Amino acid sequence: MSLKAVGLNCTLKASPSPSSTQKLLDEVLDALKGRGVETTSIRLADHDIKPGVTADEGEGDAWPDIRRQIYDAHILIVGTPIWMGQPSSVVKRAMERLDAVFDEAQDDGRYPTYGKVAGVVVVGNEDGAHHVSAELYQALADVGFTIPAGSSAYWVGEAMGSKNYIDLPKTPEKVNETVQTLARHCFHLAGLLDRHPYPAP
Amino acid sequence: MSLKAVGLNCTLKASPSPSSTQKLLDEVLDALKGRGVETTSIRLADHDIKPGVTADEGEGDAWPDIRRQIYDAHILIVGTPIWMGQPSSVVKRAMERLDAVFDEAQDDGRYPTYGKVAGVVVVGNEDGAHHVSAELYQALADVGFTIPAGSSAYWVGEAMGSKNYIDLPKTPEKVNETVQTLARHCFHLAGLLDRHPYPAP
Amino acid sequence: MSLKAVGLNCTLKASPSPSSTQKLLDEVLDALKGRGVETTSIRLADHDIKPGVTADEGEGDAWPDIRRQIYDAHILIVGTPIWMGQPSSVVKRAMERLDAVFDEAQDDGRYPTYGKVAGVVVVGNEDGAHHVSAELYQALADVGFTIPAGSSAYWVGEAMGSKNYIDLPKTPEKVNETVQTLARHCFHLAGLLDRHPYPAP
Amino acid sequence: MSLKAVGLNCTLKASPSPSSTQKLLDEVLDALKGRGVETTSIRLADHDIKPGVTADEGEGDAWPDIRRQIYDAHILIVGTPIWMGQPSSVVKRAMERLDAVFDEAQDDGRYPTYGKVAGVVVVGNEDGAHHVSAELYQALADVGFTIPAGSSAYWVGEAMGSKNYIDLPKTPEKVNETVQTLARHCFHLAGLLDRHPYPAP
Repeated sequence: MSLKAVGLNCTLKASPSPSSTQKLLDEVLDALKGRGVETTSIRLADHDIKPGVTADEGEGDAWPDIRRQIYDAHILIVGTPIWMGQPSSVVKRAMERLDAVFDEAQDDGRYPTYGKVAGVVVVGNEDGAHHVSAELYQALADVGFTIPAGSSAYWVGEAMGSKNYIDLPKTPEKVNETVQTLARHCFHLAGLLDRHPYPAP
Repeated sequence: MSLKAVGLNCTLKASPSPSSTQKLLDEVLDALKGRGVETTSIRLADHDIKPGVTADEGEGDAWPDIRRQIYDAHILIVGTPIWMGQPSSVVKRAMERLDAVFDEAQDDGRYPTYGKVAGVVVVGNEDGAHHVSAELYQALADVGFTIPAGSSAYWVGEAMGSKNYIDLPKTPEKVNETVQTLARHCFHLAGLLDRHPYPAP
Repeated sequence: MSLKAVGLNCTLKASPSPSSTQKLLDEVLDALKGRGVETTSIRLADHDIKPGVTADEGEGDAWPDIRRQIYDAHILIVGTPIWMGQPSSVVKRAMERLDAVFDEAQDDGRYPTYGKVAGVVVVGNEDGAHHVSAELYQALADVGFTIPAGSSAYWVGEAMGSKNYIDLPKTPEKVNETVQTLARHCFHLAGLLDRHPYPAP
Repeated sequence: MSLKAVGLNCTLKASPSPSSTQKLLDEVLDALKGRGVETTSIRLADHDIKPGVTADEGEGDAWPDIRRQIYDAHILIVGTPIWMGQPSSVVKRAMERLDAVFDEAQDDGRYPTYGKVAGVVVVGNEDGAHHVSAELYQALADVGFTIPAGSSAYWVGEAMGSKNYIDLPKTPEKVNETVQTLARHCFHLAGLLDRHPYPAP
């Protein structure tokens, strides 16, 4: 059975606006597909995700369906733009909703997220990729994801610049290296944890 | 003319759910009122604030009205709960919307926020107040607010605890000290900057 | 062959001052020892670690010996106190020195840290454990460590409190749960990555 | 009487290594000097600053003399390089030492830092200026400094780049704007607080 990966695009803009985050996220998902992973991606701004910290915030909440896709997958790739050097409100909303996992411990104390691997993709036009990764790694590890070795895949332009990733003529070589490393490590680690889950206490 | 203060309650929960953040925010606003400041507060989860980084994201966007109240005030008190050790998605949304100030420079290069003072109020049941303050101070200073001396007003319970601020029988003495200091310093600094604005370049 | 773990105690205080960080770090190392891991710990404040970002900063630098022990181990447990809601200057120094790994890529592009697992232990008397974990997870993942599922092992007291972990009569049950989970996950993941290293590009 | 400003250069490298941080710090100090401020700067890596959180960590500790200069000044400009997207261990050490202010409250509860203004200067070759500012603003406000409106003065190059600020042929226009704004606002605010100190409780 093949591994599955879900990518979350946490841009502030709904479709069909062009999205630099989607571009870099797709590069990672394509690299996973090249290894036989089934991939899909969800642009969160196209859905009505209610604020809250439960699995289902009631009528009209789009999260239960997104959550089901995350829980069905082995790999979660979280892609976010940077605003003010920080993660977007959209990715924060998704992390808060994942916090519901603490009500979902199995009888043996393990969480349904244990055994899943999470990678991070960050795009900004000047500054903040490391900090955004820090915030997301911590939130994702807290709710039960394993974080592979190696930096997140990211691109930021020169300070106070206004260039966008989507407008680059081609993917810079160093960015592509992080894309390939992230995909290779997520794939390897997700396979290992699928075959050898964390043991019960 | 008296000074004005606006408090933003950035809890994830809409009215009429009880809100620990509102309780601590009200304590700061009351201390300001005691100094003659006109105060009001807005619970953001009760309003439909669209994602984006412009001043007005179009039909149905509640932000333009909130923004007008912020721009009319001399003091902004931002209150947020902590989720996963980080600021809420609701406060992140507000900060992103404030980012629009960069399109609003006056002819002399000054922003309409220059001369306004911002204070931070943080409530969580275990951990994260300093980091939440760090994220908010930076975002608020970046968009033109001045940050007074002294820690934010905050309360967090013991690690991995579940006690809520709203359920405390009374305000702890040390918390009240930070409340009073925050109000005193915001009031003093906002008055100074109102009478003596930052000069043009 | 058994796995090896190294614990770094990043308290600001040299021996023989009592150290809350050491106490919680030891609890994690003991849990690893119970699973057959060879453990050792190093109190960085007892050593003269020069500032810099290379593997060896010259005469009198204690880092090369510490670095050798980290490179020989499969598991790195980084323990730090919280000051001002942030990681200590001592743990920052250690992270900066680990940054030297970027000059040490093997011929196939892999770093000597790939395959090593890192866990985090945080102790403070009031606030900051999640943020400290965020900073360390990101730095550790960046330099090639894999981060296991589950929160770091941490303890913080009530806001603006002055109680120290070392003075608690016994380890709180919830803290012990995070200690056991951290040790179990580090052990499992380090064993997996030892038998099945990340593949070359 | 003229205002005084102290700049702290928190590079990891001792003199006489070239320092990009010093270059940008000097630009801010020069702008202050142009407004009649007496300026000086201290390169912390040239001094033996002991770890700890007290005002004087005993024999050989260089901090008491540096602290005296900070306490004599009205404006503190903290300059730091970015390593791994985070503040340097050297600037973290300085912040920890400033934490001693909490033992120095005057009879009326005010701290000796109240009334002082702090600005931040950040230089990195690719990413992290906003986050570094966030960490420093929070630490500095916590210990009693007031933070002026406007972003810190910073420069970072393109992602995963290796260009250094000191090697730029000239200061980019936008960087110079933040330099001038930072100096103008620090000067204005420090003068105001010197003439109109925060009141006692």
